[in-house]
Amino acid sequence: MKGAVLYGPRDVRFEEREDPKIIKPTDAIIKIAATCVCGSDLWPYRGLQPVNEPTPMGHEYCGIVEGVGSAVRSVKPGQFVIGSFAASDNTCPHCRAGYQSSCIDREWMLRAQAPVLRVPLADGTLVATPETPSKEMIPSLLTLSDVMGTGWFAAVAADVKPGKTVAVVGDGAVGLLGVLSAKLMGAGRIIAMSRHEKRQKLAREFGATDIVTDRGDVGVARIKELTKGIGADSVLECVGTQESMMQAIRATRPGGSIGYVGVPHGVQLDGQQLFFSHVRLHGGPAPVRRFLPDLIDLVWKGKINPGKVFDLTLPLDQVTEGYRAMDERRAIKALLVP
Amino acid sequence: MKGAVLYGPRDVRFEEREDPKIIKPTDAIIKIAATCVCGSDLWPYRGLQPVNEPTPMGHEYCGIVEGVGSAVRSVKPGQFVIGSFAASDNTCPHCRAGYQSSCIDREWMLRAQAPVLRVPLADGTLVATPETPSKEMIPSLLTLSDVMGTGWFAAVAADVKPGKTVAVVGDGAVGLLGVLSAKLMGAGRIIAMSRHEKRQKLAREFGATDIVTDRGDVGVARIKELTKGIGADSVLECVGTQESMMQAIRATRPGGSIGYVGVPHGVQLDGQQLFFSHVRLHGGPAPVRRFLPDLIDLVWKGKINPGKVFDLTLPLDQVTEGYRAMDERRAIKALLVP
Repeated sequence: MKGAVLYGPRDVRFEEREDPKIIKPTDAIIKIAATCVCGSDLWPYRGLQPVNEPTPMGHEYCGIVEGVGSAVRSVKPGQFVIGSFAASDNTCPHCRAGYQSSCIDREWMLRAQAPVLRVPLADGTLVATPETPSKEMIPSLLTLSDVMGTGWFAAVAADVKPGKTVAVVGDGAVGLLGVLSAKLMGAGRIIAMSRHEKRQKLAREFGATDIVTDRGDVGVARIKELTKGIGADSVLECVGTQESMMQAIRATRPGGSIGYVGVPHGVQLDGQQLFFSHVRLHGGPAPVRRFLPDLIDLVWKGKINPGKVFDLTLPLDQVTEGYRAMDERRAIKALLVP
Repeated sequence: MKGAVLYGPRDVRFEEREDPKIIKPTDAIIKIAATCVCGSDLWPYRGLQPVNEPTPMGHEYCGIVEGVGSAVRSVKPGQFVIGSFAASDNTCPHCRAGYQSSCIDREWMLRAQAPVLRVPLADGTLVATPETPSKEMIPSLLTLSDVMGTGWFAAVAADVKPGKTVAVVGDGAVGLLGVLSAKLMGAGRIIAMSRHEKRQKLAREFGATDIVTDRGDVGVARIKELTKGIGADSVLECVGTQESMMQAIRATRPGGSIGYVGVPHGVQLDGQQLFFSHVRLHGGPAPVRRFLPDLIDLVWKGKINPGKVFDLTLPLDQVTEGYRAMDERRAIKALLVP
């Protein structure tokens, strides 16, 4: 089997990897229908996160179960399934509290840019669709594995409520799906921060009512201006840099909430500044598993079409071009089909 | 009039200060029944916060209204009143959202360790008691000006709920009143972190069910042990140091909440560590004004006696000894009577 392996900055290769097989009785093997490149894959790809050895890549996946270990009960061969980027037992106290991505048995999924994948803790990680989906629905189902679930968590963590004003920092796939999530939760006004025309258009399609093209001080001033000097009730931080985090904190009203889902890189928060901002901060790796059943239902019924974030579809063996296109911001998100 | 003035590290003097008078039509002048030394006064007193010029001290107060400006409507001379350490108009959008300590017209109270005090924005800042209180009730009413309101906010911000497990970092007056607040909100288990016997005793009296005497890694491990490895649902951070903040973050379960009310000094939060902790963070200067009516009611009806945190009562002219006793941790909190 061939799959994606990252060797170092801007050096991702499609090459022979070991065939996955069942190792533990709780494993499942799935034949991947579609996978993709994540914004978070770009951190190591750009050399902003060390790559110490050749690293198999990919953590977003959906497909058909090929085989299961002897202890697996909730999914069976032939079913179409989607799983979180974090495998979880879904029974420990953290899972039961809805934080499956902090499961005490958590395993990060790391090898999904491939035609076949081993999923540990299958019962607690995978959710089956009602039937085998149409080919058209697969991109939207795939987003539930990470980006849509992450945008949704950003909106949940930012306490988005009907009629409220929401600002979204970041116009990557997660930010755009954060806009869609806020819209679904009834936000009255959704301000998307984007300087990229194609992304602005999709943000509007997903429900953005205002676009702010400025960043930093000017961007914050613009949001204050749009909210009569008050600030947004909820801010979704979907980038993970010092600049984006500070933008989120400064754009939020006192008592307002920030949902931050961009994996922070080099972010340091000054305690006193945070204190006097009076904001609420919640975030982390999205507990996608918590939201999977409801989000599958929304996609299945045609109520949402998050798969629109894929503006580039490539055969899996062109994964290298997928990374390049996203790195150069030519593509919002690249879908890879084995 | 004589009042407290801080000149530099450990140099607080009781000396002649200007008599307060009404400057704006929204001002009130109150004759102080009692004031006190705050844990936050110790930061500059200990030289951990710069003192650039002789600085009048004190921000906790209650007493009888002596006079009001022409625009004041809600309080009148002769009434006994309590006000927040942050004066607020109580009408701006931040006030209406319950964040009066971020009022757009906010003024920090700074001169309360004195016999007479000018309170700006009197209508939005002061709340009158039903009648003139007994002398015995005054210490408890005084705590509502800051420490009790701050402990209460810590519990609100940490989302304390009936039956849940709460940990309190800090055994100063705010931490102890955080214990009392958590108890009133129905917490099932309240773990107080304290190494000081007298404070442990008061913590137990206020509702603590467990005492942890360790700090740092061992303290966190102890809380994990007491919560079956899960962590506390809610943690009240009532100190404001890097150590106390990290202790709070590490003692909280994923998805749990931290209410932090200790003014952070030198605290830097690593974005990635916070992200993977999965905690909720909310805090800041307590919007005491929001809670004043309810807390006055609880004191008035004898349901709470937060004044127990005062274990030293001094005439105002011995304010210097009040600072010394608190600095040396001989006293939890010093009450000053003009």
